Amino acid sequence: MSAGHLAIVGLGPGPHDLMTFEAEAALRRATDLVGYGPYVDRLSLAPGQIRHGSDNRVEIDRARHALDLALGGARVAVVSGGDPGVFAMAAAVFEAIEQGDPRWRDLDIEVHPGISAMLAVAARLGAPLGHDFAVISLSDNLKPWAAIAKRLTAAAEGDFVMAFYNPASKARPYLIHDVFELLRGLKAPDTIVAFARAVSRPDEKIELTNLAEADPSIADMSTLILVGSSETRRIARGDGGYWVYSPRSYGIAR
Amino acid sequence: MSAGHLAIVGLGPGPHDLMTFEAEAALRRATDLVGYGPYVDRLSLAPGQIRHGSDNRVEIDRARHALDLALGGARVAVVSGGDPGVFAMAAAVFEAIEQGDPRWRDLDIEVHPGISAMLAVAARLGAPLGHDFAVISLSDNLKPWAAIAKRLTAAAEGDFVMAFYNPASKARPYLIHDVFELLRGLKAPDTIVAFARAVSRPDEKIELTNLAEADPSIADMSTLILVGSSETRRIARGDGGYWVYSPRSYGIAR
Repeated sequence: MSAGHLAIVGLGPGPHDLMTFEAEAALRRATDLVGYGPYVDRLSLAPGQIRHGSDNRVEIDRARHALDLALGGARVAVVSGGDPGVFAMAAAVFEAIEQGDPRWRDLDIEVHPGISAMLAVAARLGAPLGHDFAVISLSDNLKPWAAIAKRLTAAAEGDFVMAFYNPASKARPYLIHDVFELLRGLKAPDTIVAFARAVSRPDEKIELTNLAEADPSIADMSTLILVGSSETRRIARGDGGYWVYSPRSYGIAR
Repeated sequence: MSAGHLAIVGLGPGPHDLMTFEAEAALRRATDLVGYGPYVDRLSLAPGQIRHGSDNRVEIDRARHALDLALGGARVAVVSGGDPGVFAMAAAVFEAIEQGDPRWRDLDIEVHPGISAMLAVAARLGAPLGHDFAVISLSDNLKPWAAIAKRLTAAAEGDFVMAFYNPASKARPYLIHDVFELLRGLKAPDTIVAFARAVSRPDEKIELTNLAEADPSIADMSTLILVGSSETRRIARGDGGYWVYSPRSYGIAR
């Protein structure tokens, strides 16, 4: 093992309270903090810690930079919003390792999980992920539309609850409309749909609707979209709002 | 709103370090802690807090008990291993509310997310959930085999990475063998498979294998099973072990 150390750390959806104790400890131990600017900027640094914020959205470049710092003997923390393993920095780091400097394979590497957006959104709504679900990134610079359509069709055929990450694409703004057009051909019009933006942050906004009435143009890159299974339902609360949940049993009369 | 309060709190996979700050604060504020015995027993209580441990595995009974305590004015925390929204207590609570005392709908209810087993396991392995994945409970007392088989088939057709919860059934010990027999007809023999038992706890054990060689009889109720997509791969580490990850791109030449 080399002297260098790399921790890939999940910050959770935003507020410090939704980070784990382990993630915070990993940040405290680091000599160097690497990440996308807005994530690195929200960290309060200890004396001597070095911030390597980047406005570069190319994750693999950040991963390589972090691996090189670790190889040089630094104790590096790569920070990631949500959980680093779900459409975030962890896969970029391992992709870099597979393709890159063979000495990177000798580094001491740890991944510290975090609360992924789907879990924070589900907690706010009730328990929409209480039964089988499929998690899909709609980022089409990383896969062609045919691959996205295949996954959506399979998820609908399996009647999974669905969670969509990265729903807005600057390169292809109509993609999210294509997604909903496809789903409308496969699922019932009254299927529950939620657009959850910036959950747990001050600008949190949740829109609860159904597949027939959903307007996907409200989704931006901070939005997670949930689409229910045939059994996902809502319960009226005393305060006029609703809870959304997916029953634990399936295809068994309740 | 009634005076009562109910928090549904995710404890994460086991060690205190993998809990969030928010979850710990919710536990500290509670007057009454309700949960399955082993989960409640591992909490250190403040003076005056009341423990309602139960060896009853029927989650809906615990949910009703907690709702009644809250209706009586208590500040109740229902504890759940992992994330309460993923095959755990949150869906049971909302199921109880939908079917039960209408006054339960007026309670102030909050769900505090936690690190679900799939995230802890993925972090230990590398980044196997770095691309689209499907999450399936194999608990067949809550759904018939036909429903499980439909979901598995759809997940295989969509080439999702799969995470299986609750793989061992006392009532039907051959179920997990049926699952693997079905998957062997649908996916390549060299598909990566991991059996991850008690991850992050002292008795953690991970077995990394492939679909052809996997022996599903090693799975118990503390085991989470991961099955890769066609693109999930492993990287040899300098120490003789392997990292497992799913590349972020799909169907695009790397």
